[in-house]
Amino acid sequence: MREKDRYVKAGIIGSGSWATALAKILTDNGNQISWWIRNEDTIRYMQLRHHNRHYLTSVYFDTNMVKLSSNLEEVVAASDVLVLAVPSAFLEDVMLQLSPEALKGKKVVNAVKGLVPGSNLLINDYLSDIFELPLEQYYAITGPCHAEEVANEKLSYLTFSGLQESAAQSIADMFTNTYLQTIVNRDVIGVQLAAVLKNIYALGAGIAHGLEYGDNFLSVYITNCFREMQSFLEAYGKDHSEAGAHNYNASAYLGDLLVTCYSLHSRNRTFGNMIGKGYSVKAAQLELNMIAEGYYASKCLFEMNMEVGAYMPVAQAVYTILWQNLNPREAFLSLEKGFI
Amino acid sequence: MREKDRYVKAGIIGSGSWATALAKILTDNGNQISWWIRNEDTIRYMQLRHHNRHYLTSVYFDTNMVKLSSNLEEVVAASDVLVLAVPSAFLEDVMLQLSPEALKGKKVVNAVKGLVPGSNLLINDYLSDIFELPLEQYYAITGPCHAEEVANEKLSYLTFSGLQESAAQSIADMFTNTYLQTIVNRDVIGVQLAAVLKNIYALGAGIAHGLEYGDNFLSVYITNCFREMQSFLEAYGKDHSEAGAHNYNASAYLGDLLVTCYSLHSRNRTFGNMIGKGYSVKAAQLELNMIAEGYYASKCLFEMNMEVGAYMPVAQAVYTILWQNLNPREAFLSLEKGFI
Repeated sequence: MREKDRYVKAGIIGSGSWATALAKILTDNGNQISWWIRNEDTIRYMQLRHHNRHYLTSVYFDTNMVKLSSNLEEVVAASDVLVLAVPSAFLEDVMLQLSPEALKGKKVVNAVKGLVPGSNLLINDYLSDIFELPLEQYYAITGPCHAEEVANEKLSYLTFSGLQESAAQSIADMFTNTYLQTIVNRDVIGVQLAAVLKNIYALGAGIAHGLEYGDNFLSVYITNCFREMQSFLEAYGKDHSEAGAHNYNASAYLGDLLVTCYSLHSRNRTFGNMIGKGYSVKAAQLELNMIAEGYYASKCLFEMNMEVGAYMPVAQAVYTILWQNLNPREAFLSLEKGFI
Repeated sequence: MREKDRYVKAGIIGSGSWATALAKILTDNGNQISWWIRNEDTIRYMQLRHHNRHYLTSVYFDTNMVKLSSNLEEVVAASDVLVLAVPSAFLEDVMLQLSPEALKGKKVVNAVKGLVPGSNLLINDYLSDIFELPLEQYYAITGPCHAEEVANEKLSYLTFSGLQESAAQSIADMFTNTYLQTIVNRDVIGVQLAAVLKNIYALGAGIAHGLEYGDNFLSVYITNCFREMQSFLEAYGKDHSEAGAHNYNASAYLGDLLVTCYSLHSRNRTFGNMIGKGYSVKAAQLELNMIAEGYYASKCLFEMNMEVGAYMPVAQAVYTILWQNLNPREAFLSLEKGFI
């Protein structure tokens, strides 16, 4: 157990499975947290039953360790380190409730996987635009880390990226414990882009599964996605020197791609599977009561790549299947030929 | 269907699942084959029932397309292109039945996954020593390709490697069909080493599963194995300039590693799982009625790496667990710390 004086005041924004997993890790490590949850019923339920009604329901919280609130300004004001963990599609709705000065002096730790829809901005660029948050105060958390396994305390790895490695390390230290290993690097732009891409590829893996491709094909598909991910990042880096260098053979890149493409917990894979089986996006959404991140990500990335200009046949196929009704079978027949 | 005059006389040595899958592909494509099967009972059964008694039993052969024989010299003499597909542990026993001139002028296509036990030679080096087979007449077939999915005609990819790309292409053409895509390259040494390494890592993945690590960990484990594979090949290349360059982000490397580590068909993974659950090598062998390739490969590689000198904590842990009774739990606890 760490000493009390090392604790900083941490806040979490969001109440989905990932936010709940991060809240578990922080409180397991003895950090008291402020926790913003939009829905008052969800708060009341958690105060009464000590667990999240909807996500990771097996995880119980010591209510002395969590200060729940639906007042966003209050939670932000109470936090030195603020963990953002809402779906990217809702991020703007949430953040626009805050005054432009709200993040002044805060360390913002982004656990949102995705770009801001519409503007296609990376979260750091969005926060810079709206809150003038300098990149030096911004950190990204990336996987491979399905929340369900954190709930079960299965050993998992998180990567904490920030321009200042020592500051990233001290945030990582808040999360490190017996079931959670942390890795620190300076690659704050690259890891975010990889996290966006992997959702698209996992959705595609689901489509392939729905089309009844087997394990042999899936391994070739993922290999080619991994190469495509690198092509994009290299092309992106030519116009964005701030993106720096990337160690692709690390868990934030290949590991996260693998767990998302292979794991049965993956919402992207589940969603894609229905698309492959012939459901429309609308029908899959109704059936599963969700739209996977990869759906939005495929559009953001498609638009982004109009400028970047990387060769991305897989990401383009996923986009065209989801947004322009390309027949999944035909799309994959044409992908097959180009794989190595 | 290709024209008759393009056919060359092909022979297959071996009757396991991989040999049977390759026989299916060749005969599906209209190639008559000579097929060496050691056991006369297996031959009689196949002549009567038209399928292999022990492996891929759902695959039926047109007996007009296969000439079965237990006479090795005869099969070799009848073949221009000879496909070797016996377990590496038995390769020497088989090949030493042949006269030193038997392979003169033949194209030898190696589908054996592993090194020659004892000498730790790559198969091409072994064939060069014993038969003076020049590397120009040697080709390697590598995955990712579980035989079971070939049997079910699930789309799979094979890589054909040879010094002369056009000759490798014409061999690959014999195998290409609607369920089998082929890739050709010149990387004949590297792909073989990758195929050896992936068996070790898949066995380790099985151990991790037996130790009840989850999907998050597995993805990190495989990522670090992939990096370790590259370290080995780069270190190997320093003393073996003939090994040339390698495209790691291709299916013969990453894809084969993935399918072997993730697939439930993998014997290495199944074997490792029992080791992780606390079975001894002997007990796992008795229970499963086999020893996985990764078991032998871990020893060959360990010895080979004494000269190569690459940093290979995972391969070394697998070797030490299997051959020196290191406790799997302890071995993995110490691996955990070094992963990124």
